[in-house]
Amino acid sequence: MPGEFEFIDNIKSKYALGFVGDDCAVLPNGPDTDLLLTTDLLVEDIDFRLEWTTPELLGHKGLAVSLSDIAAMGGIPMWSMLSIGVAENLWKTDFLERFYSGWHELARQFDVALVGGDLSRTSDKLVIDSIVAGKVTNGNALLRSGARPGDQIFVSGYLGGAAGGLSLLERGFRYRPDTPDNTSPLLQKQLQPTPQLTLGNILQQQGVASALIDLSDGLSSDLSHLCRMSGVGARVYRDRLPVDEDLAHHFPADQCLEMAINGGEDLELLFTVPEKNISALPDSSLTCIGEITSNLGIIELMVGDETRSLEPKGYRHF
Amino acid sequence: MPGEFEFIDNIKSKYALGFVGDDCAVLPNGPDTDLLLTTDLLVEDIDFRLEWTTPELLGHKGLAVSLSDIAAMGGIPMWSMLSIGVAENLWKTDFLERFYSGWHELARQFDVALVGGDLSRTSDKLVIDSIVAGKVTNGNALLRSGARPGDQIFVSGYLGGAAGGLSLLERGFRYRPDTPDNTSPLLQKQLQPTPQLTLGNILQQQGVASALIDLSDGLSSDLSHLCRMSGVGARVYRDRLPVDEDLAHHFPADQCLEMAINGGEDLELLFTVPEKNISALPDSSLTCIGEITSNLGIIELMVGDETRSLEPKGYRHF
Repeated sequence: MPGEFEFIDNIKSKYALGFVGDDCAVLPNGPDTDLLLTTDLLVEDIDFRLEWTTPELLGHKGLAVSLSDIAAMGGIPMWSMLSIGVAENLWKTDFLERFYSGWHELARQFDVALVGGDLSRTSDKLVIDSIVAGKVTNGNALLRSGARPGDQIFVSGYLGGAAGGLSLLERGFRYRPDTPDNTSPLLQKQLQPTPQLTLGNILQQQGVASALIDLSDGLSSDLSHLCRMSGVGARVYRDRLPVDEDLAHHFPADQCLEMAINGGEDLELLFTVPEKNISALPDSSLTCIGEITSNLGIIELMVGDETRSLEPKGYRHF
Repeated sequence: MPGEFEFIDNIKSKYALGFVGDDCAVLPNGPDTDLLLTTDLLVEDIDFRLEWTTPELLGHKGLAVSLSDIAAMGGIPMWSMLSIGVAENLWKTDFLERFYSGWHELARQFDVALVGGDLSRTSDKLVIDSIVAGKVTNGNALLRSGARPGDQIFVSGYLGGAAGGLSLLERGFRYRPDTPDNTSPLLQKQLQPTPQLTLGNILQQQGVASALIDLSDGLSSDLSHLCRMSGVGARVYRDRLPVDEDLAHHFPADQCLEMAINGGEDLELLFTVPEKNISALPDSSLTCIGEITSNLGIIELMVGDETRSLEPKGYRHF
């Protein structure tokens, strides 16, 4: 049985689905803009646990993961639809109202309009399908497939925080924004991540990046996706990785590094930049972690002078 | 606790969601066309049972219900996204491949392109979110809200067949297209319904109908939705109802009538036509079942000379 990424490849080739395979589908839409489309299915006890979060935070995250897909194409979000399947016991509470309130709080920040959706019943678990559409200048969506040997690899922000938050939740810590402690930043990164829409859109408008993806599965997996789609390899320097500093309060150094490399859901951006464009990069919190090579599909992790092979160990459903 | 339709009304008014509330959302999209958008969440053991159908038929139906929403606006479908949550045991079989094959068979008929989707894991039940976009001439989507007193009420095809099929499935009958018997037409109506895209589009292009909805929840509920959105009432004549003739092989007359009035999922179209336009109606299998009245929200069922009140008893999740 193939894994999920192989299955999607099979379906794509079988039905000649040229549009499928990036963070968003890109559809021609009038003379000036292309339409970006993404859908994210979140399933209780697989993608989230109700006892770990609040309805408001879940509403936020449900939208944030889809907005991150729009950011990963350099686009601007426009509208959303929300399909929710909810069990009777939850339906009878104020859960949905609080969920919509958290959803709407984030939607308002980025001017996203809720235009439709569906409400269904489930026998027990909650399921959420978040559908978001965005726009980008005609032909200018930033794809995963544009990286070329020699391009420098950048990430935004810090890595591993969301994975650290997940581990803290598993250990029994809970997010209490009113009484913050040293677990709060990691828990917030896991439960209330920020999609990097502004950075994504700047990269697109300036035309400086050659390829872009968001860090949702984890650096090792997402870099592997990008390399596969670009037909290239990559070399990453361990000592350059911007490991989330809050991790060190709770985890030993090797585990912090493991979370930065394989932990998912940070919703930071990973992108490649041709040498000549580096000086034009925006003045954000960006780190150059390595470079693109011509070693098709091979990702090297440089630890001092030693070269290790970096296997994609990020999140996959199957 | 409000029911699902009341909840959706609340969310709409709270967040000023003018777009929400018809079979599809209608978004302006360029100078000539509006975009139609619909999403349908189907949950195992609530909306379908795996032991009652085949993967291919489920793929067909998952798309058919969304295409029916496009038909209910008089639109033409364009593209689709499919989010699927599947448990590990099903993932390991050929289920998804067969599901896509059935989906694609129907998509091909109506030239619908699969442009994206998501694949997630669930702990046990299968969930499917079907997203379909269509188009319609700018400002010309057929809404639920256009019915006026005096308009005649029409339905396409025959009513109650899908509900009859559901009842047969509950009794243990199974659909075997290779060895058809007198259960097959009803089982097919339930498991492999046909969206009325051609009729919907003709009604839209000819401009003869004042309001349109598809019969997904059931005649009594869907007529009630249409009346509520139009601010009108309706009078329906029992003896005119085109009760599916195959029902009589399996159910007593009063149950056949009950299925035609309250049974959902027929995916036929229900629409209203001003008197002056009736002669221009297309030459399809259409039945005039009554007329729109000014009795806001009241639906009368005429049984001979007797007037009964018809309460919406079609399907609702909550």
